[in-house]
Order: sequence, then structure tokens, then C-alpha cells
Amino acid sequence: MAEIGIGLLGYAFMGKAHSNAFKKIAYMTWPPPLEPKLVGIAGRNTEAVGEAAERYGFEYATDDWRRLVADESIGLFDNLGPNALHAEPTIAAAEAGKHVVCEKPLGRDAAESYEIWQRVAATGVKHMCAFNYRFVPAVRLARELIDAGELGEIRHFRGRYLQDWGDDASLDTWRFHPDEAGSGALGDLATHVVDLARYLAGEITTVSGFAKTFLPGRQVDDAVEAAVEFSSGAVGTLEATRFALGRRNAFQWEINGSQGSLAFDMERLNELQVFRADGDRARGFKTVLVSETNHPFWEHWWPPGHIIGWGDTFVHELHHMLRAIAGDSEVAPHGATFEDGYRAAEVCDAIVRSGQSGAREQVTFRALP
Amino acid sequence: MAEIGIGLLGYAFMGKAHSNAFKKIAYMTWPPPLEPKLVGIAGRNTEAVGEAAERYGFEYATDDWRRLVADESIGLFDNLGPNALHAEPTIAAAEAGKHVVCEKPLGRDAAESYEIWQRVAATGVKHMCAFNYRFVPAVRLARELIDAGELGEIRHFRGRYLQDWGDDASLDTWRFHPDEAGSGALGDLATHVVDLARYLAGEITTVSGFAKTFLPGRQVDDAVEAAVEFSSGAVGTLEATRFALGRRNAFQWEINGSQGSLAFDMERLNELQVFRADGDRARGFKTVLVSETNHPFWEHWWPPGHIIGWGDTFVHELHHMLRAIAGDSEVAPHGATFEDGYRAAEVCDAIVRSGQSGAREQVTFRALP
Amino acid sequence: MAEIGIGLLGYAFMGKAHSNAFKKIAYMTWPPPLEPKLVGIAGRNTEAVGEAAERYGFEYATDDWRRLVADESIGLFDNLGPNALHAEPTIAAAEAGKHVVCEKPLGRDAAESYEIWQRVAATGVKHMCAFNYRFVPAVRLARELIDAGELGEIRHFRGRYLQDWGDDASLDTWRFHPDEAGSGALGDLATHVVDLARYLAGEITTVSGFAKTFLPGRQVDDAVEAAVEFSSGAVGTLEATRFALGRRNAFQWEINGSQGSLAFDMERLNELQVFRADGDRARGFKTVLVSETNHPFWEHWWPPGHIIGWGDTFVHELHHMLRAIAGDSEVAPHGATFEDGYRAAEVCDAIVRSGQSGAREQVTFRALP
Amino acid sequence: MAEIGIGLLGYAFMGKAHSNAFKKIAYMTWPPPLEPKLVGIAGRNTEAVGEAAERYGFEYATDDWRRLVADESIGLFDNLGPNALHAEPTIAAAEAGKHVVCEKPLGRDAAESYEIWQRVAATGVKHMCAFNYRFVPAVRLARELIDAGELGEIRHFRGRYLQDWGDDASLDTWRFHPDEAGSGALGDLATHVVDLARYLAGEITTVSGFAKTFLPGRQVDDAVEAAVEFSSGAVGTLEATRFALGRRNAFQWEINGSQGSLAFDMERLNELQVFRADGDRARGFKTVLVSETNHPFWEHWWPPGHIIGWGDTFVHELHHMLRAIAGDSEVAPHGATFEDGYRAAEVCDAIVRSGQSGAREQVTFRALP
Repeated sequence: MAEIGIGLLGYAFMGKAHSNAFKKIAYMTWPPPLEPKLVGIAGRNTEAVGEAAERYGFEYATDDWRRLVADESIGLFDNLGPNALHAEPTIAAAEAGKHVVCEKPLGRDAAESYEIWQRVAATGVKHMCAFNYRFVPAVRLARELIDAGELGEIRHFRGRYLQDWGDDASLDTWRFHPDEAGSGALGDLATHVVDLARYLAGEITTVSGFAKTFLPGRQVDDAVEAAVEFSSGAVGTLEATRFALGRRNAFQWEINGSQGSLAFDMERLNELQVFRADGDRARGFKTVLVSETNHPFWEHWWPPGHIIGWGDTFVHELHHMLRAIAGDSEVAPHGATFEDGYRAAEVCDAIVRSGQSGAREQVTFRALP
Repeated sequence: MAEIGIGLLGYAFMGKAHSNAFKKIAYMTWPPPLEPKLVGIAGRNTEAVGEAAERYGFEYATDDWRRLVADESIGLFDNLGPNALHAEPTIAAAEAGKHVVCEKPLGRDAAESYEIWQRVAATGVKHMCAFNYRFVPAVRLARELIDAGELGEIRHFRGRYLQDWGDDASLDTWRFHPDEAGSGALGDLATHVVDLARYLAGEITTVSGFAKTFLPGRQVDDAVEAAVEFSSGAVGTLEATRFALGRRNAFQWEINGSQGSLAFDMERLNELQVFRADGDRARGFKTVLVSETNHPFWEHWWPPGHIIGWGDTFVHELHHMLRAIAGDSEVAPHGATFEDGYRAAEVCDAIVRSGQSGAREQVTFRALP
Repeated sequence: MAEIGIGLLGYAFMGKAHSNAFKKIAYMTWPPPLEPKLVGIAGRNTEAVGEAAERYGFEYATDDWRRLVADESIGLFDNLGPNALHAEPTIAAAEAGKHVVCEKPLGRDAAESYEIWQRVAATGVKHMCAFNYRFVPAVRLARELIDAGELGEIRHFRGRYLQDWGDDASLDTWRFHPDEAGSGALGDLATHVVDLARYLAGEITTVSGFAKTFLPGRQVDDAVEAAVEFSSGAVGTLEATRFALGRRNAFQWEINGSQGSLAFDMERLNELQVFRADGDRARGFKTVLVSETNHPFWEHWWPPGHIIGWGDTFVHELHHMLRAIAGDSEVAPHGATFEDGYRAAEVCDAIVRSGQSGAREQVTFRALP
Repeated sequence: MAEIGIGLLGYAFMGKAHSNAFKKIAYMTWPPPLEPKLVGIAGRNTEAVGEAAERYGFEYATDDWRRLVADESIGLFDNLGPNALHAEPTIAAAEAGKHVVCEKPLGRDAAESYEIWQRVAATGVKHMCAFNYRFVPAVRLARELIDAGELGEIRHFRGRYLQDWGDDASLDTWRFHPDEAGSGALGDLATHVVDLARYLAGEITTVSGFAKTFLPGRQVDDAVEAAVEFSSGAVGTLEATRFALGRRNAFQWEINGSQGSLAFDMERLNELQVFRADGDRARGFKTVLVSETNHPFWEHWWPPGHIIGWGDTFVHELHHMLRAIAGDSEVAPHGATFEDGYRAAEVCDAIVRSGQSGAREQVTFRALP
């Protein structure tokens, strides 16, 4: 079985999630498209990254990501660093001929995201922005139902990503530093909403809204609110907040079409709510437990009804990337390319602009030069 | 027991709802503050209004609402007519010294609503705009929890009123005629969202959004989308639509505070979701079946757990009005006065303006002269 | 419109429920099959029954139910008294030529129930045992789906009626006195489970179980548990308890067939869960909000999605009885006849016997002589 | 870090679940109590077991489990074979000094289970019967709440394990062969219900019920129904079936006490419903998403709200066993020992006896000689 060397930048929350995924791909998605070999892991804290290497079985740890870029045994560079560390290492890795995965948001704003996309695209390597929620089975099933025309004409998308850990002035993490994070709930959560809105309901054309900071002294936004229009004529709302007390990871969305509707909540990620206008007298939303043998990704798992976890979405995501690298499929449309990462950033920037200008902002997208 | 003569303008959907309520008040809210005596009912269709009079037990039917206004035995004039028929009869009845209830929206726009409020307020009669959802026990309980400070500082309100009957070009009702209805989902559904937003989260200061018409040829809006700011600093989204397939009467709202959160869905109107940050290790939203002996309005009903219906909210609403007329309480703050009706209209108008201007619109309220 | 005089024995909880229903039938089910005229109401407490007469509009109150039986203007005798007062007045009324409704349980045990059925059946009047839960729209819809074969062969019925008000040794009501009530949770709650089991899944043939009393000194059972077999070959469990803390009126049942399944909870009585083995890839239970224009009983109510309450089930039930009296339909199969009341008692008695004998008990039913 | 050699008997469904768990323990439960080293895997199909060895990284595959027993580098023998293959290899492994895990049901009946327990206990090795559902975080949290007295006196336990894959006469697996499986839904599903009933509500003393086979020619039971009594005085129902259409893995239970209640559904295994009689006016079941930093097992996983899957319960279970082997804790009470496996079998046997005798059966337990 062909191997691929993996280099990771980042060892904390996302480092654990991606390491776990690479390890599980080797035997849960059997046979894997490529066998991931954990080569090197980089991070700023020497001790912590060293322990991570031991824990996950990387051949070496380093405090210099350039070592990964220079390592010819690494074929896939997976960038899980703070947002400020997305651009330079990712571009360098791609220019060194490595395929690249980069966590979301791609850059700290649309301009940086465009730069990453444009520079990486020029190298010809495979690139994926790690919007892992596209790889929730229920989300993929939703997309397949939509692609099959089961919803008819899309009328509405309403999405909100609700968390509640932000309401604590004593917290300090890079996520609250504008230079490292770029933004707050916007880049962290709203990008996910924008990405699934685009994946499921199509391109966003205008936004009317704003970002909001609740805590005095907090330097990034705590919440984002917007009314949006889609190129299809659909309309809806987007919201993201770290101040929705009681909601831990409630990325909830609903999409209404002329023939059907779908609804979802990440806190119950194994379920998809499906409504169809089929004339049945027993009319209502069906709670689909997305775990059937004919459901997306389920070939890798258990008998029906034996649900999977949040961490397993990364198995699907990185398996998808390995298949693309192996030439078995393309990253798009089911994976988010760096262009998708850039486009999400344009929508997010437009919300910020709308907040500042007080005007409805058009969202326009640049093409590659 | 003192009686009060009731005159109804309107005999269809709302005529049934209000007639039923007046009849039930007489024995379900025992003893009633005033005994409602069904005197006259007015409507344009002579045959239909005649049948309604027989059905509900009014002393007479008429095709001329002025007869009700002139009838001295009528002490409460309850206007359930199409929106275009709100202003003149309501003002006339008040000027004839009758207490007045008027269905929502108060007028077809803010200007007309202001005129009604101002003219009626000048007469000194009691007035209530029939936002019946304030009289859902779960909504009143929510308000009581908020008033008691259990939510702390309010951060978010997100409300959406989702129905799905509008996606049929062959439908014709006065609700699709701009001159009779004033607007579509805006005046019909969004006013309810605005009213509960104001009742629960306080005054709205800006809106960024728009109204949307999906069907070619439809002359009123089918949906409304907005991002909003409250005077408290809270932010959120408002939505109303007749195009959310599968949602029949899904008026859903959630409110997040610094100490607690509440969530609600009108399709399960007997339930309130309650979250509190009380340090309990077993942390989560509680599904409260609002039917306890110490819950709002429950003294009138059944043992705990024996739920009530949508129609019963009108019993609470009109009982509240009778108590106000009897001098036992005021219409405000739990009932919506005509000022509340006017203020809701200002918010709705601002959404329309925002849609047209492409700008965030301030909401400003006029006072009485 | 033809009238029918109503005589009520009982003025408290059930008196309120039935009075309300008769009053609403007159205008909510328009035109009513017969116009109910509230003639007389009987009860032991002179003051209370007098107030009830005034409250609900009966022509007179009496502390002697025989006056109702003797009153020729009464065509329907509705017995809502304590269980010990079911037999004699009901039989007397029927023998006086009045149609009769009797609250459940029909008698305090199978023998008394048989006596009531047999004596009343001999008179030829219409008789109905007031198992009102057959008249929940979702329950009737369930029956219609089953009758249409949509569930295929029935495999399982599991039903439980959970309440939590019994765990209080200081409570005293006739419901705790064996002579007045006959039994505890058995006659009060388990009869409902048995009746819907029979209505939906067919006749019960054996029971293996027992009744249980938790509180020292309590003279009736607090809970009932049984494994049961049906004549169809289906099997399942039956439970009833007043000790399920947190469950207020949770009459929950589920029925599984070879082609479909249904599930229900009385605390959400407007909803029916429907599963069908139709090969759809989006497989799951549908939450049907039973409020469509083509749903049972909905012609009497509101637009779709505007839910009804527990009290409204009595409107359907007594409307059904009036139709039967008017000759528009039969009490059976959708209403429970006194034979159904008797058969439910046989099943309940068999559970008691099983508890005493420690043996699986056959359920056998007597026929009329 | 100390290693422990693992030998697996079985490579299919449970082989995948346990292999995955051992691999994840090495880095998800960091540092692991012992580092699992995958030594040998045994199975009857040479080709399939060979592929499993390659897939999961075992050093060797064998078609003779005796090789595992003889292998001195193996410290833990994990028996996942068909039920008929539980006794001999497990006993042999223990007598060879290896710690043993055995899948449920421990034996094909109580006698065989007793034999396994007695023989293994005599060796002094650690033993665990793999009732993995004790290691669902919500189940452990339930147990902790009960242990802390938060439910007061237990009144009711009702448990049902509902699946729907059995209604297909063309299916053939060892699970339908009495010699290999011992029983059908009884040993497969009802044992789980019995085990959690015992874990949460205490010892079962009597059962009144039966096993049922629906399909002609099926040689094992398809469903089990019973009313049960506990030594605490609690009562309830137990059910297990492979014929509950629409239920995929719905192991649902509810427990009611004098101070609180808990409810659970395996299809939403990250959630626990918690009710407490604390006098709060907002009274209801709380939906606890069991994923907080202070919740059981959560130290190994993700931030709050990022749910885990069914497969992850095996990580907790086998981590628990490794801790016991390492001397950090005991298997009991949170793990099921072979005595628990035996006792579950006694309850299951009593249900079969009750079905045959038609009598309530006492459950009695043997002690070690």
C-alpha cells in the first residue's frame, strides 16, 4: 500500500483531532487510499510538541515548521496553527511541492485568504480548507438530496453557530488577539455557517448585518448577525456567537425549498430532519438517523444506529483529501478548496464592512489572475 | 355579576377565535371579571355574518359596523376585520366611548397605526392590540423569569415565524392585497416576532434587512429577514416567512442572557425551554411543561400536564382586557396597548425602508402630541 | 335544530371537562348533530353543585341524581361521579330510557362493569364509556393508518401512563379509597392503556404482572406492571403509575408492525410519530403535527399548526355520542361502548389476579346473556 | 511506559470495535495506564483473520485460539467470539494466567456463565464481561447521580432495547443458531437491559414474562417481555426486540425515584434527561449534553458539546480494564465482572422459565463455592 508522509503544524485541539483522524484512516477506511505515515509535528512549545510526537507517534517534533517544509518524506502538510500562521507555512509547503490542508479560516481576512489561494493554486498541488462539517454524514446527505432536486427551488437558508464559552473576561487565548486570530466569532464560527450556506444553498450575494463585541476590552467580535441574499433568489439569516448560554456546539441550520426542507443541529450531528411535500397525509419532518449502509461515509463504520462522534468527521475529511491526492477524486465539490476558503472570507469581510458602513454590502469574488 | 356588551367586527377565522374566547371566559375564568354578553356582530357578507350570529349566539348581525358603534349596549368593540378596516371603526368606537380591541397589525403601516393610537388614546378608553401570543402561558412565564432577573443581562434574541401556506400562486385572500393588508408576511407574522422581541428583550433600535417576494405577480412580501439591535445592547435576527415548507405555525424564538436562556416553539406552545447557569453539573435546557398550578393562567384550566390549545390564548387575552375594563389591572405591560401596536409597526416599516435604502435603519418612535 | 337535554352527575374535574365540551359543541362543531341543552347537574355538595350550575348554565342543581333520572327533558345522562357511583345511576338512567355516558373505569371491577353493560344493553339506549383518549386526533389518525394496513402485521404494543402526583402520603381523595375507587392507578390510568391497546392493537389474551403499592397505609395500588399477549400474536408491556416523578400526564405508547410503527406521548398530544418501511433512503420517524384539514376532527378547529388542548378531546368525544344519538353513526368502533368498558375491566382484573397468583392469567370475556 | 500484549479472539464487528479501542487508548487516554500491544488475533476464517491482522496491526493471525493462550507475550485475552466460544477459550486463557475480557452474554445460559465465572475467579486474574454501555458517559453520570442520592428511593426502572433487523426470514448468522448463540434477542439485547437495570436500580428479584419468536422456523427468540421486581422495592418492565421497526439501536431506559428521574436513549447516547424535585417553578426534564469537563470520561476527549460516538464507549471500557490490570482500580463496581455476567444470565434464564411455566419466577444467584 502506498504511503504518504504527514507533517502537522499544530499539536493542540486540532492537532489531536487530525492526528486521531490520520491514525484511524489507516484501519477504519480499509483499505485506505494512501497509508498516512506520521512524520513530523511542529509547534512553538518545544516540550508540548515533543510530548505530542510521542503521544501520536510522529517520527520527530520540531519548533520550526520550516523543517517540515524541507522534509522530502512529507507529502501532505497539514496546517492547524493559529490563523496568523496559515499563510506563510502553507504557501511555503505548497511551493515545496507538498499537498496542503489548512484549517479554517483560510486567512485572517479575504485579502490574506486570496493570497494563500492564489499562491498555492499556482503550484498545482492539491489544497483543502478544513471545513470539516461538510464531512458530517447528515450534511453530505443533505447535499445529495439537494443535488437530486428533492428540495426544488431553494427559498431560505437560516444558519446559526451558537456557543457559550466567550462570556468570561478572564479568558485569554490566541483566539482573542486580533493579530493572531484576525477576528473572533466571525472567523471561528461564522465561517462555518458561511461555508455550509454556500455548500448547501449556493453563492451569497449580499449581506446586511454587523459584528458585535459584548465585553469591554475584548478586542475581537463576540457575535455576528446578518440578513443575506443568495444568487438563487433565496434569502435568510446568518448568526454566530460565543454568548448563547446553554448552547455548547449548536451549529444549527435549516433550508426550505419549494419541494422539501432540511434541518440540522450539530449537537445531534447523527440526525437530519427531512420534510418532503409528497402529498402524504402523515406530513411532517422525519428524524433521519444518518447511519444506514447506504448513507454517506457509513461504509467505514458500524451497523445502523450505532452513532459516530464529532471527531470522526475528520476521518472523513482527511480520507477525502488522501483520495484526492491518490487521484481517486477531486477535492471539490465536496471538500472545500482554498477558493472556498477565500470565498467564505469575502462573505465574512462583507459582514464587517456592513457593520461599519451601515449599508447592505455586495459580496464580490476575485478570480485567479 | 356585571355584564359587558360585546360588539365584533369580523366573523371568520378571528371571529371564531374571539367568540369562542368570550364564551369560555364566562365559565372557565370563574368568576369572570365581567360577564361578556354577545350583542352584535358585523361583516360584509350578510349571509355569513347572519350564520355567525346564530352560531355564536349574538343578538344580531349587521353588515354595517356603524350599528355596533351606535349601540349603547355595547361596551367593548372588538375589531377583527381586514387591516384596512382597522382605523376608522376602531377610532369611531373609541370616540363613541367604547373600549376597543383591535387585531394586529394595528394599522397598515406606522403612520396609520400612530393615527389609531393617538385618536383612541385621546378618548380615554381602554385599548389593546391583540397580540395574543403574549398570553401563551410559556411566554408569560418567560417574561416573569426575565423580570425576576433570572436571565441576567440579555445578549441575544432570535425570532422567526415560519409558515408554509404562501407558496401557491392560485391562492387569493385579502391578505395578498396591498390595499387591504398593507403588507404580507410583514404585518401578518413579523409583527408578532417584533412584539414578542419587544415584550421579552426590550426596545429595538436598528434594523438591517429587507422584505422579499418570491412569487411573480404577488403584490405583498412573502418573507422578511433582518439583523437587529436592541437598546439594551442585545443583538439578534428577526425572520418571518410563508415559504418555510413543513413549518405550519412555527413561531420560534430564543433569548440568551448572561445568567440563563429560554427557547420556545409555538407548535409546542405548552413548553418552555429553560437554561440556567447555576453551576449544576447536570447542565442543560429544561423542557418545562407550562401547566403547573403556579404557572401563568393555569388557575383557569386543568390538572398539571393536561395541555391547552392555541385557541385558549384568546381566553387569557380577552380575560385580561375585561379585567382592565373592570378596573382590576392595566392593559400594560402584559397586554399590548395601541402604543405597542404602533411601535411594532415602526419596526416593521424600518425593515421595509432598510430593504429599499440598503441601509441600516434607526427605529424612532413618536410620542403622543 | 333538534335539542337534547343533558343531565350531569358530577361537577368537579370531569364536570368541568364535560360541561365545557357540551358548550363548545354547540358552536365549534357547526352545525351540531343535536344542540346540547344543559338541564340538570347533580352532586353531593349542595353549595358546590349549585355554583357549578350557575357557572356552566344548567337550569338546576340537585343533590339527588334521581331527579335527573326522573327528568323527562333529559335525553342524555352523563355520569362523572366517583367510581362507586357509576353502576346504580347509570343503570337507572338507561332504564328510564336515557342515553348514557359513563366515565372510566366503567365499574370498580369486571363484575360490576359487566353488570352495568348487561343491564344497560338490555334497554337499547346508546351507551359510551368515556375513554376520551380515543378522541385525540393523533390517536384516531393512528387507528386509521392501522385500519388502512399501513403498519402491516402488528408485532408490539408498549404503553405506559406515567403521572407523579401519588407520592404524597398526606393526600386524600376518593381515588385512594378502595370502596369508592375500586383500585388506584389500575382503574384510573391502566384502563386507559388497556383501552388504547385494544383500540389500536386488538384484543389482549394473557397478562403476566402485578399491581404495586409503594406507600405504607395506601389502600389502593400506586402502579401496575404487566407483560401482555394479544390475539394477533403481538406482545408488549403495559404500565401505569402515579410515581413517575417528572411525568405529569405522560400516556406514551408505541406500536410496531411489519410495515410501520407509530409512537405517541399525551404530553404532546398534537403529534404522532410515524415510521414507514417504504424504502426511502431518508429513513426515520416523522413528527406529524396532527392538525391538517384532512386529519381527524380538524374540520372543527383552526388552520393547520394551531394546536388544540387536552380539554378539546371531550368535544370530539361527546360530539361523537350526539351523532350516535342522532342516528348519524354508531358509538362503536371509534367510541368505547360499555362492552369496551367491561373488557378493559377484565384485563385489569387479570393483572390483579396475576399479581396474586403469580401466574400468567388468561383474559376471558363474557358475552351478553 | 509498561506494555501489555493483547490477544483477540474474533475479528468481525466486535473485533473492529475492540481493536479500534485498544489503538485509541494508546493516545486518547494519555498517558494510558498500560500501552496495549496488539499481538495476536484468532478466527476461524484464515483469510479474513489474516486481513484483520494486517488492518489493525496485530503481529500475527491464527485460526487456533490456543496459540493465543499459549503465547506468553499476551497479558490480556479478549474474547469476542460467538457465544458458544466464550467458555472454553476464556477459561483456558485465565488458567494460563491471562487477564480476560469476554463479550456478553458471558455464557449461553446461567449454568455456562456460572461455570465461566467460577473457573476464572479461581485463577485470580482480572475479569470483565464487556457490557460496554456502562461506559457511556451518560450512563456513568446517571450512576453517579444515583450514588449521590439525587434520585432518592428508586420506584421504577423501565428499559427496552429496540432494534429492527430481525424481521427478515432470509437472514442467516450465528446469532440465529441456538447452539452458537444460546438465545436470540434475550442474550443479545435483553442482557444489556438487565445489566443496566442492575447497575442503576439494583438487584432483580422476580420476573413475570416470556420470550417470543415471530418468524416461523426461526430457532431463537425475537423478543422478550417482562414485568420485574427489584430488591429495593422498585418495579418495572424489561423488553428487548429485533422487531421494532424504525428503531435501529434504541436502548431506552427511564428510572424514577422519590427525588428525581433520569431517562436515556442510546440513539442519542450523548444526552441524559434529568429531572429533580427541587421545588423550582420551572419544572421539567433537563436535556444534559454529557460532554462537560467535569463529566465522566470527558477528560479524554474534546471541548464541551463536541459529541462522541458509539465506538468510543469501548475506549472507556478497555481503558477501565487496563487500569484494573495496572492496579489503579478495580473492575467492579463500574465494570461488569464475570459475576455480573453470570447474574444477568440468571435473570434472562428466569424470563425464559417464566415463559415456559407461566409463573412469576424468583431470581436466585449462586455464590462461588
